Amino acid sequence: MKLCELAPECIRAIHPYQPGKPISELVRELGLEKYGVIKLASNENPLGTSPLAIEAMTNALQEIARYPDGSGFELKNALSKHYGVNVDQIVLGNGSNDVLELAARIFLKPGASAVYSQHAFAIYPLLAQALGAHGIAVPARLYGHDLVAMLNAITPETRIVFIANPNNPTGTLCDADDLLRFLERISPDVLVILDEAYDEYLPEANKANSISWLRKFSNLLITRTFSKAYGLAGIRVGFALAHPDLADLMNRIRQPFNVNSIGLVGALAALQDTEFVKRSYTLNRAGMLQITNGLRQLGVEYIPSYGNFISFRVRGDATNTIKTYQSLLEQGVIVRPLGVYDMPHHLRVTIGLESENEKFLHALEQVLKTSL
Amino acid sequence: MKLCELAPECIRAIHPYQPGKPISELVRELGLEKYGVIKLASNENPLGTSPLAIEAMTNALQEIARYPDGSGFELKNALSKHYGVNVDQIVLGNGSNDVLELAARIFLKPGASAVYSQHAFAIYPLLAQALGAHGIAVPARLYGHDLVAMLNAITPETRIVFIANPNNPTGTLCDADDLLRFLERISPDVLVILDEAYDEYLPEANKANSISWLRKFSNLLITRTFSKAYGLAGIRVGFALAHPDLADLMNRIRQPFNVNSIGLVGALAALQDTEFVKRSYTLNRAGMLQITNGLRQLGVEYIPSYGNFISFRVRGDATNTIKTYQSLLEQGVIVRPLGVYDMPHHLRVTIGLESENEKFLHALEQVLKTSL
Repeated sequence: MKLCELAPECIRAIHPYQPGKPISELVRELGLEKYGVIKLASNENPLGTSPLAIEAMTNALQEIARYPDGSGFELKNALSKHYGVNVDQIVLGNGSNDVLELAARIFLKPGASAVYSQHAFAIYPLLAQALGAHGIAVPARLYGHDLVAMLNAITPETRIVFIANPNNPTGTLCDADDLLRFLERISPDVLVILDEAYDEYLPEANKANSISWLRKFSNLLITRTFSKAYGLAGIRVGFALAHPDLADLMNRIRQPFNVNSIGLVGALAALQDTEFVKRSYTLNRAGMLQITNGLRQLGVEYIPSYGNFISFRVRGDATNTIKTYQSLLEQGVIVRPLGVYDMPHHLRVTIGLESENEKFLHALEQVLKTSL
Repeated sequence: MKLCELAPECIRAIHPYQPGKPISELVRELGLEKYGVIKLASNENPLGTSPLAIEAMTNALQEIARYPDGSGFELKNALSKHYGVNVDQIVLGNGSNDVLELAARIFLKPGASAVYSQHAFAIYPLLAQALGAHGIAVPARLYGHDLVAMLNAITPETRIVFIANPNNPTGTLCDADDLLRFLERISPDVLVILDEAYDEYLPEANKANSISWLRKFSNLLITRTFSKAYGLAGIRVGFALAHPDLADLMNRIRQPFNVNSIGLVGALAALQDTEFVKRSYTLNRAGMLQITNGLRQLGVEYIPSYGNFISFRVRGDATNTIKTYQSLLEQGVIVRPLGVYDMPHHLRVTIGLESENEKFLHALEQVLKTSL
């Protein structure tokens, strides 16, 4: 086909799209009873969503024939108050994926490069590739970001450095002081994207005061999401905080109605339900303890995690990891294999409800027994 | 700020972002009672949304903490059956704006050009500008697309031709035979985007059998939306139909979860509620008759429209058009001024419910009386 040959080589080189089957299809095919299947694969909130947010969204459905408020007036005002930033520092997105892409589209192009860590969130290399930019994956240190090595990896062509903190799928956390030093040392014409999707799961003592850094570093962009602790993954709301000049550029190229009405209303209500976020945090801490204790008892090696998930190592070769994934699936427990993250020996499990964590540990125990 | 100076000139040249106030704010500021305000400004469905779709979406909110099905499995299967295309010919989008942007991002770049008609949908020139491509606006004929002139405007650098059919905001329709001739004559390495957002409002006799053309023209892309007759503007679902090779390229660069869960479920239910679409069509035809009759009685010139809206001319200079817009607003009737569409003497009104149309006509009559 002649037309498609005119598409940029960088897009034609992307792995062709493989439509994935939804869980419901998978369950049907495997003959599993849906009732018994637990999904601990996507770092979703096992508590669901704030009931106040559900109520607000349900009500808003009555007006769904109307276009969304393209300016996100109310949500941006609420975020402004909540985070102590100006409204003109906020960019709303169709999930934080959207704001990551907006920033990438401004600064990445053929000839430019983006720096990120080995084992970092899979979207970063994909964004660079789709824009024809060079992706520089810096070897991780103990599965986490090696900030000094990342600084050294920067070339004159580097336009963006991505830092996920905590990182998905490793759960590792950069020290706040190290991050600050990184920002002080990096050239101000390189954009630093600090992806804090899992920030709400951090104990207060571990939180970087990153938002206050925006006053000092005009090359800092912080991204957050309503998909994790706020329990709104399905409705797609994320946002970026940045210098007003950068936020303005991003707002110029975003789609006018990039965030849907239900997402706007749901995020607003979820932001205000601090009780729900607190419960989500507490449940996650308890579940993390439950799972790490369980893994230790099973003699399974894991990477200590600051997120709402934990990655553990499967003994033997990479094939064995996939076998373990399959065996868990057949027992109705869905986790995530990490081959795409350059971690072919690891599986990632999301911290669930107590009963779900127990079911996962039990299923894993069965797998380990039979593979002895 | 040094960093932002590294942004491409084409993005820096975009008009800085002006956050618009939502209607609710405007009404508050003007001291208008919300009760009495009617919004006929965004071509939304005055009947609202299919009750079946509302019900499906309400139920789906219970699972909103889960990520959407990124493959859109069920909706794509339903669209495949509904339109007689293969699943691999479908690209789902966060509104049709999203699929328009995906196609533009593949083919437009500095040095390339896009051809569209004067008075065509405002998103086309914006897409070209954001990508640094040259936008070629071809003078309209009787406010509609001059397909022969558009063909002649194509240069070796042209990668996309946008055709909105019916066109927003003029409501004009290209003849199906003329479109077919256009496709037969255009170079197969120029993408033709046929934007059929208002297709559901066309009488059967006026519908082009455009989807069948996909079998013959691998450079044809058809876009449709759930925002208009399906009454789902707030939840953002649109889609493109194209040759599988092109659809694949678009799917490679779309955001993995670009369509939210509620949109997927709502669109599926709305697609199946053919009764609601039929009612929407019938109401629109009656309302169009009511408004055109009313405009004629008031001696107001209008552009005959095939959409769910109609653009009418305000006598006097462009200032008078804005004055008329303001006067209507003060009477609680919100319409759309068309300066941005190179039509500074026109206002566009969406066809509403019978009572809304009556209120609009009455308000317009008052304005015309006082300006005599």
